[in-house]
Amino acid sequence: MTSLRLHAPVVLPCDAACTVVRDAVVDVSADGRIVFCGPASAAPALPAGATERHFTGILLPGLVNTHAHSPMTVLRGLGGDLPLLRWLREAIWPAEARMSPADVRAGMVLGCVEMLRNGVTTSAEMYFHGEQLVEAVLAAGSRVVFGSAIMELPGVSWRTLTDQVGAWIDADGLRFGPGERVELSYGPHSAYLLPTDALTAVAGEAAERGALVQIHVAEAADEDLAQRAEFGSVPRLLAKTGILDGRVLAAHSVQLSDEDIALFAANGVGVAHCPGSNAKLASGIAPLRALLDAGVPVGLGTDGPASNDDLDLFEEARLAALLARLSTMDSGAMTAAGALLLATRGGAEALGRADIGALEAGRWADLVHVDVDDPAFGTGLDAPDEQVIANLVWGAGSRRVRDVWVAGEQVVADGEPTMVDRSQAQAAVQAVAARLR
Amino acid sequence: MTSLRLHAPVVLPCDAACTVVRDAVVDVSADGRIVFCGPASAAPALPAGATERHFTGILLPGLVNTHAHSPMTVLRGLGGDLPLLRWLREAIWPAEARMSPADVRAGMVLGCVEMLRNGVTTSAEMYFHGEQLVEAVLAAGSRVVFGSAIMELPGVSWRTLTDQVGAWIDADGLRFGPGERVELSYGPHSAYLLPTDALTAVAGEAAERGALVQIHVAEAADEDLAQRAEFGSVPRLLAKTGILDGRVLAAHSVQLSDEDIALFAANGVGVAHCPGSNAKLASGIAPLRALLDAGVPVGLGTDGPASNDDLDLFEEARLAALLARLSTMDSGAMTAAGALLLATRGGAEALGRADIGALEAGRWADLVHVDVDDPAFGTGLDAPDEQVIANLVWGAGSRRVRDVWVAGEQVVADGEPTMVDRSQAQAAVQAVAARLR
Ligand SMILES: [Zn+2]
Ligand SMILES: [Zn+2]
Repeated sequence: MTSLRLHAPVVLPCDAACTVVRDAVVDVSADGRIVFCGPASAAPALPAGATERHFTGILLPGLVNTHAHSPMTVLRGLGGDLPLLRWLREAIWPAEARMSPADVRAGMVLGCVEMLRNGVTTSAEMYFHGEQLVEAVLAAGSRVVFGSAIMELPGVSWRTLTDQVGAWIDADGLRFGPGERVELSYGPHSAYLLPTDALTAVAGEAAERGALVQIHVAEAADEDLAQRAEFGSVPRLLAKTGILDGRVLAAHSVQLSDEDIALFAANGVGVAHCPGSNAKLASGIAPLRALLDAGVPVGLGTDGPASNDDLDLFEEARLAALLARLSTMDSGAMTAAGALLLATRGGAEALGRADIGALEAGRWADLVHVDVDDPAFGTGLDAPDEQVIANLVWGAGSRRVRDVWVAGEQVVADGEPTMVDRSQAQAAVQAVAARLR
Repeated sequence: MTSLRLHAPVVLPCDAACTVVRDAVVDVSADGRIVFCGPASAAPALPAGATERHFTGILLPGLVNTHAHSPMTVLRGLGGDLPLLRWLREAIWPAEARMSPADVRAGMVLGCVEMLRNGVTTSAEMYFHGEQLVEAVLAAGSRVVFGSAIMELPGVSWRTLTDQVGAWIDADGLRFGPGERVELSYGPHSAYLLPTDALTAVAGEAAERGALVQIHVAEAADEDLAQRAEFGSVPRLLAKTGILDGRVLAAHSVQLSDEDIALFAANGVGVAHCPGSNAKLASGIAPLRALLDAGVPVGLGTDGPASNDDLDLFEEARLAALLARLSTMDSGAMTAAGALLLATRGGAEALGRADIGALEAGRWADLVHVDVDDPAFGTGLDAPDEQVIANLVWGAGSRRVRDVWVAGEQVVADGEPTMVDRSQAQAAVQAVAARLR
């Protein structure tokens, strides 16, 4: 039953057609689900005791960041001009080796604050010290699909890390937390950092639990030469190890052949497209248009804030459209509406989640209010649908995000987080950053 | 003599090395020039009666937007998914034909407001109804290099338009206005929209007056086939007509050969690099690295807000770096510092202006204060120089611009324009936009 009604002149439910609904409401139940989304004139009667709030801007679903390492806010800007592998080996990994569980928590709180203020309500995270990371997400009121990083670390084998994920899922369940804020998943780093028997083992463990596998795939041309030489391509290796038989999210997926794309499509592999990170590290441009044309579910990812360097998914949406147009030399290759869908509905699909990413009855009430008191909306909300979406995506972006709800709970009000103190979160990260450098 | 001292923990003068000066001051004279910029410890004694203001963030020069058609704020988002020539012919030109001088003024006021809030203090504009455009710039307190558009319009010949520019310069001078806010220049649209004798005539008139010529060059592959067939390339055509003998700013310059680049370098031609517009319209990636390596002065341009769709030069700086890295597959092709210099000092050089674009004694006091109360500066201002610049360019961008001065006059205070009312400017443009569609 509806306990909260949000009313705005424009609602973008992010259905497949990216419909613009004028003078519309979103009804939310006490347990944080969407009850109704549509024109105010078609809305059911508001139950007694329900609250109605009027907004002057645009309501849309919370954005879904399908690939991030958000605790790396503590390393933002570090060694940013090195190529991928040197940057990892010389700047990032040595600093990460010194990060404590408390550092991860501090970094993740600030990451959540930054994402929420940018309209991102869900992030798929691959990182370590998961307990503290999840604590941070719950503290900030965000939503996470946490992929516990699996790789060979000094003193810890991939086997131990894999077993730990299984034990955690077996203890707490695949999803838990208020408004089911947390989903657990497996995060084998990549085919080039893990032996194939590790991937086979992870595939089995994940399938047994119905868990998602998050993995870096074909990011840079030179990272996986040995794997390509042996298996033809990383997607083929993943198929062989059974990873593609289950739920899987392939991050980056830049260096793909047409056969790789077909393999992804046939297996329903989701892709986390990270145009900003791939450009900054000169890894290349992922074949976005070809992936979409093949029917692969694609979402957008910021990657870690040490490599991008912010957690702004609107910026990734713009970059996705710009790079798709450039790489095909076709300005019709990706519209503003198409880019917005990648950042919302597409992200949910890539994660195999039908409960977020759109304003539809039954889904979680993860919502964003963007106000229009900005030159970006200089042509007004009365402009044609296409123009309103263009103003939002190309012009305003995250800059005008004012209010954010996760599972019906308001976690950003007038631009500031409601559940954690932003100044404290920033100060905590500054202290960590000073210690790590 | 210093009348105003601005003091901040970090000042980026945007000298050629992109030095980071810690605990530094910028001294400004009553007539709006920089008197001193350097460490507070090395600053001259503050004269009696001078004001000192302390800031907690970063001071840097006002950004220089080298190519814009800012009054097109009234057309923002219109027909944005069409390719360049169809977009111009089917969406933009018909709407522009109905724009009145008052519409241009309204559009330019909002454009100035948007640019100033994004830290852009100077824009090179190519447009029509110059009197109203300049009025708008003076009203908002911004700075402009105005290139009066020269093309064949219904009922107005290129000859008449060219003569009008000459008459205006002869009457008011090449530069005028408080703090010399206005520079007049010639804006022949392009080689494909004008006969060569028009370009020859404009070259002569401009040279006679020492005026800059702003012109679109080699933007899209298919726009100038006839000119390429006859002259080999547009730069060669420009050389032949004498345009390259004077001060010239070549906007876009995407489709250039190595010979074209050498021709630009030999003639000191400035380039306005517009990565966002070129990507959105699928025109291509300009050879930024090659232009810089050849010694061509390069600045950044937003192009018009109808094609980009905002007037955010920090975003162009990021795009310039990302696309330079992608097109060369070298993450070292453009650093954050390099991108910042393009947006400031480089823009001034491309316009042939030694009086803006850097914080150096003698230049105009065009300054921006970016505060650091943001997750983007999570690693703090005590971080190494490279990291502070990375946080500013990759992370914060225009989002944290709080205060802006032009010729020492504060035109943005705490994020809002001081000389015009932002709400009124937005409402005026909404009314125009509603009438034009
Ligand atoms: Zn990653
Ligand atoms: Zn232009």
